[in-house]
Amino acid sequence: MTAAHATPVGNPVSAPVRIEGFAAVVPAGGAGTRLWPLSRARAPKFLHDLTGAGRSLLQATWDRLEPLTGADHLLLVTGRSHADAVRAALPDLREGNLLLEPSARDSMAAIGLAAAVLEHRDGPDAVLGSFAADHVIDDAAAFGAAVAQAVAVARTGEVVTIGITPTGPATGFGYVRASGPLDVPGAPDALRVAEFVEKPDAATAAEYVAGGQHRWNAGMFVVSTGVLLGHLHEQLPALADGLREIAAAWDGPEREKVLDALWPGLVKIAIDHAIAEPVAAAGGVAVVPGTFGWDDVGDWDSLATLLPGAGEGLAVLGDEAQVLGLAATGVVVAGSGVPGRTVSVLGVPDAVVIDTPDALLVTTREHAQSVKGLVGAWRDRGRDDLV
Amino acid sequence: MTAAHATPVGNPVSAPVRIEGFAAVVPAGGAGTRLWPLSRARAPKFLHDLTGAGRSLLQATWDRLEPLTGADHLLLVTGRSHADAVRAALPDLREGNLLLEPSARDSMAAIGLAAAVLEHRDGPDAVLGSFAADHVIDDAAAFGAAVAQAVAVARTGEVVTIGITPTGPATGFGYVRASGPLDVPGAPDALRVAEFVEKPDAATAAEYVAGGQHRWNAGMFVVSTGVLLGHLHEQLPALADGLREIAAAWDGPEREKVLDALWPGLVKIAIDHAIAEPVAAAGGVAVVPGTFGWDDVGDWDSLATLLPGAGEGLAVLGDEAQVLGLAATGVVVAGSGVPGRTVSVLGVPDAVVIDTPDALLVTTREHAQSVKGLVGAWRDRGRDDLV
Repeated sequence: MTAAHATPVGNPVSAPVRIEGFAAVVPAGGAGTRLWPLSRARAPKFLHDLTGAGRSLLQATWDRLEPLTGADHLLLVTGRSHADAVRAALPDLREGNLLLEPSARDSMAAIGLAAAVLEHRDGPDAVLGSFAADHVIDDAAAFGAAVAQAVAVARTGEVVTIGITPTGPATGFGYVRASGPLDVPGAPDALRVAEFVEKPDAATAAEYVAGGQHRWNAGMFVVSTGVLLGHLHEQLPALADGLREIAAAWDGPEREKVLDALWPGLVKIAIDHAIAEPVAAAGGVAVVPGTFGWDDVGDWDSLATLLPGAGEGLAVLGDEAQVLGLAATGVVVAGSGVPGRTVSVLGVPDAVVIDTPDALLVTTREHAQSVKGLVGAWRDRGRDDLV
Repeated sequence: MTAAHATPVGNPVSAPVRIEGFAAVVPAGGAGTRLWPLSRARAPKFLHDLTGAGRSLLQATWDRLEPLTGADHLLLVTGRSHADAVRAALPDLREGNLLLEPSARDSMAAIGLAAAVLEHRDGPDAVLGSFAADHVIDDAAAFGAAVAQAVAVARTGEVVTIGITPTGPATGFGYVRASGPLDVPGAPDALRVAEFVEKPDAATAAEYVAGGQHRWNAGMFVVSTGVLLGHLHEQLPALADGLREIAAAWDGPEREKVLDALWPGLVKIAIDHAIAEPVAAAGGVAVVPGTFGWDDVGDWDSLATLLPGAGEGLAVLGDEAQVLGLAATGVVVAGSGVPGRTVSVLGVPDAVVIDTPDALLVTTREHAQSVKGLVGAWRDRGRDDLV
């Protein structure tokens, strides 16, 4: 190797590196109804490329996590109906790491199953991070650095979340309130969590942002398997026992039999309610601030801010050459991808035009939250094929 | 036949009857650019069913005129490129009555050619009525009655127009101002025309409607062939001579040869400027008021008032079952006709959504007049396939 090809000494911040003893789980559920008609029950949000990056949100999540965990330690939980789509999207996903739920039993069962499988394989000190399949993050290196700090804190027995430093007084997210610094080697930014709070109104959100103690709850949790399942056993012993029993059979011939026998009896509860809130109240949760760009892409309005061209005029998801806007700024258009098919928007500010083969949506960013109502209305008309 | 099946005695007003010695010509030209993307250069407005009646505007025009003239006396002038579409739409149209223009030379040449052919066949006393191919009329019986009065007046040597009694102060139409009654047997409603006036501004239109002397100029002319060609010969002798020379060859073997030799040299002028305005100024034009519903369907805004459902909420051209509107009244949607394809409009008042296979238009009724600008913009991008 010549000097010209020498790599820099040390690990540059911009290149995420493997975190030893760390695994991740990606729960891929939820229909993303407010992103209808692109997102459907059969082809939910995480299977779509919503930013024009050339990768679906699920694939981008994989791309972000795999360097940190390696493929052997990257797990995915989803419904059986999405198995083929997920396998096609993620060819490097290990078959034993694809946890297929017989039915949706909310996030605690999904993440808890991954924790139990990991505990069974690697022991109670293995650290697991849980990250949604359908969020957008704009800086993988900063994300990786935050995860590394969170893992360091998790090794001290904390439940750790990554809280996003707000860029504005958003009312569409829940918040995490910090109380003071923690002193953990390798995690200089970590803080104690005082509480998780629900989505605020606009005035409260403005107070949160001004105060500086609140961060967006991005639903990211990092915790050792032993600590997680220990908390779960305290709160919901039957759920913890059931998950451990399934996990014990997971890598053997009885997997499906045990899963089908026990899964239907597991309690349906979100990890926020089962673990995050009660443990935070008891002083057992820490937060590592995330300063990278993050969005849960909850609706078309939020997508409009993420697409190229947003702000200047037309934000287009698809081929910009097929879209024409006159007297219409702040427009988001998702093209059908049908070759040659064009979309023209004339004099409709903040229009949202989503063109899919069987369903065309025309609305405005202001009404983005009400798209769910359309889905319900079509269902009422017996058009389950559309939803 | 039993009494229960007996037909009423006499001709009820509602059944239009043949008018002896009367022929009609339908000039079918114009791209209807403001009704883009439904109306295109290759499939202009008159070939579309814009009211959901199950018949194109051209076919509806035929249906209205044929009972008055018979198929032998119903002529159509259009461009050669539309010949096949017109033949398919009007199977009863006589081949000799399909006057195909080698190029567009405006309405005087088109109507004048029909007048010259009719004069050659039936003599100078034959009365010809000219009616656009792409207007909407809601009462065929009232229309027929007005035409019958106009024919009676035309037999006295007048150029006769049918002027529509305004239902409001429209600024999108020209007007005809009447000066006083005429005394013609069989035409009790006929009036002398003082002048034709251009499209007014809103204040002027309101004065016109309040005054009661102004009617909409619907571009309908009824006049004997001898009178029409006589006026034309006075104003533009070369045009009149050229048309008569083509007409003399029309029903013989030299038609195409003579047409191709003379047509390119004919002057391009609208019948309004060539005949209606100068003859009105000289006191030679009469008007029969038309009290039927009429519209030239100039743009999507005007179509919105004609469709079923207009006013209450959704006005849909197509299958209403495929369209859903929430928080959006006064919306006009033209569906693609693709089976199962749906359109949802949420929170966009007065939206106009026109869904065609290669071009989707989203605008509002307020911007209907600006649709032409989109057509130009696509042409500037080299997308002649769309226009």
